[in-house]
Amino acid sequence: MMRVQEEKKLTMEDVAKELGVSKTTVSRAVSGKGRIGEETRKRVLEYIEQHNYKPNQAAGEPVHNRTYNIGMVLQTDMLTSELPFFPKALKGIGETAEKEEYNVIMTLVDSNDFSGLVRVIENHKVDGMILMRTLQDDQPAAMLKKSGIPFVTIGLSDDPQIYQVDNDHVDACRELTSILLLKGMKKIAVVSGDRNHVINRKRLEGFYQAHQDMGIPYDASLIFTDIDSEAFACGAAERILQRSADCMIGADDLLTGYLLKKLEEENVRIPEEMRLASFHDSQLLKSAKNGITAIKFNIEELGREACKVLLRRMRGEEAAHITKLSYEVAMRESTKW
Amino acid sequence: MMRVQEEKKLTMEDVAKELGVSKTTVSRAVSGKGRIGEETRKRVLEYIEQHNYKPNQAAGEPVHNRTYNIGMVLQTDMLTSELPFFPKALKGIGETAEKEEYNVIMTLVDSNDFSGLVRVIENHKVDGMILMRTLQDDQPAAMLKKSGIPFVTIGLSDDPQIYQVDNDHVDACRELTSILLLKGMKKIAVVSGDRNHVINRKRLEGFYQAHQDMGIPYDASLIFTDIDSEAFACGAAERILQRSADCMIGADDLLTGYLLKKLEEENVRIPEEMRLASFHDSQLLKSAKNGITAIKFNIEELGREACKVLLRRMRGEEAAHITKLSYEVAMRESTKW
Repeated sequence: MMRVQEEKKLTMEDVAKELGVSKTTVSRAVSGKGRIGEETRKRVLEYIEQHNYKPNQAAGEPVHNRTYNIGMVLQTDMLTSELPFFPKALKGIGETAEKEEYNVIMTLVDSNDFSGLVRVIENHKVDGMILMRTLQDDQPAAMLKKSGIPFVTIGLSDDPQIYQVDNDHVDACRELTSILLLKGMKKIAVVSGDRNHVINRKRLEGFYQAHQDMGIPYDASLIFTDIDSEAFACGAAERILQRSADCMIGADDLLTGYLLKKLEEENVRIPEEMRLASFHDSQLLKSAKNGITAIKFNIEELGREACKVLLRRMRGEEAAHITKLSYEVAMRESTKW
Repeated sequence: MMRVQEEKKLTMEDVAKELGVSKTTVSRAVSGKGRIGEETRKRVLEYIEQHNYKPNQAAGEPVHNRTYNIGMVLQTDMLTSELPFFPKALKGIGETAEKEEYNVIMTLVDSNDFSGLVRVIENHKVDGMILMRTLQDDQPAAMLKKSGIPFVTIGLSDDPQIYQVDNDHVDACRELTSILLLKGMKKIAVVSGDRNHVINRKRLEGFYQAHQDMGIPYDASLIFTDIDSEAFACGAAERILQRSADCMIGADDLLTGYLLKKLEEENVRIPEEMRLASFHDSQLLKSAKNGITAIKFNIEELGREACKVLLRRMRGEEAAHITKLSYEVAMRESTKW
């Protein structure tokens, strides 16, 4: 009987009640964080050891092997892209993590090779993880879920159990498209990247919504997806010109840069003969002669928020499952009508 | 007597000799890396435990607490800069590290706050470190040296004991300047960044050397250093125009971008009225109407080399103290004479 009693899983409440201290005190003793007297700490830890208390791993309070590392799961193309998304997100994450004395540790994955992530999980190298991109049928997310390590995604997920932080790409693209439609543009083309990335699906979703809201049909022959090189972007631009669209939206600044170059080569005047708008608003388009209309996101803030949600999860605190951050639509010369 | 005997520091050779195995076998047993029979491994480890053998920390073979992490010491401005130096270097470092199952861990420092680095050192979070920038009177380097953690700098150091990897900035800038002088330019201006960064000193050194080699004096009133904003760059450009220079060298693509913008605003034609050259060759200048002459470095390779030197150091193997990587001078439209 006694043995069974001892093996029953003690909760933090049981420990607090038994010792006549608050739950916070128990939590502080266990986590080693926050102010607590040395004697109380010892008392709590001794009691826990004697009574076989295992803090709830799912609540993110492992007693042993706390690494003080947060993992960042990166796709290699985030490092080769000249879009400054990754460094800015890292700045937000890194500075937020450092405030609580956590370091950020990198794991590179690509669509065929998740071995780096497996190694980090199996070797208990992190206390929590941030997935830097969400995918359709997201294998890294599934692996993390199975591992029990608290994690947060940057990018939305259809899985309501996953903690996710993102800019509101649907709404941002809906807003941009509505304004362009209100201005009178009727044939708007979209040149977008990998459909396997949830972010690209969300942007298209917003584009469709704006058309639906205003009862204006979109032209499916003007939607180009999975465009991942300058050559493909040029090919898309050629067909868009042939089909007499009046506006192009590049779903990121690199794609928009390619479109811009192609339009310049073809001597198509912006905005007189073709309107052009972009997602993100990096230095890449700053050198364009005329200002390029663009949706602007605060990527550092995105990193900070994702890290804050993760830290809350790691402490077993409440956090919003879905955090959607805002955006700004900067209307400039390139979409004058 | 016996106690003294036991406390004498055993070397790897002693262990190998005593057990009749090779030094490699001892090393493999200690590091847990490489092929070795389970029985032999146990025999070596038991002997070591009984005889109080402490592997030489300086040789980078700690028995305990191997973290399989490599630290990357970053300055915050590397994350805010839109120059893609940091992501490219990380790609080279990360991929090289992953091959040996190491992860890369970030530590942010700035000129006033090295607490992140202190924490990483004190908490033994890494087996080795890469300093991403060298400074005059380099405090992070001094801290790492004192800690005994193997480390490598990206960027040169005057301290011959420090393992350092860099592109040859002196020679690259000497080469570029020589070609410009050979083409007939006589009044070449330089707009350069923080003199506290060794890299900026090295670039100027190359500029001076080229003049010296060819017996052509340079004009000290055309050298602008510590230029760290668009406003300062514009101010420098104004004075350079007033002083009738025939060429400007921007010591990085951001600075060159500012100079380019200013020249366009002032309707100064390139190359007819002013020649322009740059360091690095990022996407930032790709959208310039005419090609901009630039020195090109392979930053991924720089990351890979630094990581390889570090891994060698961590294994206690020989490595070159100074590794200088090459460069390419891409002569383009902007310096036609």
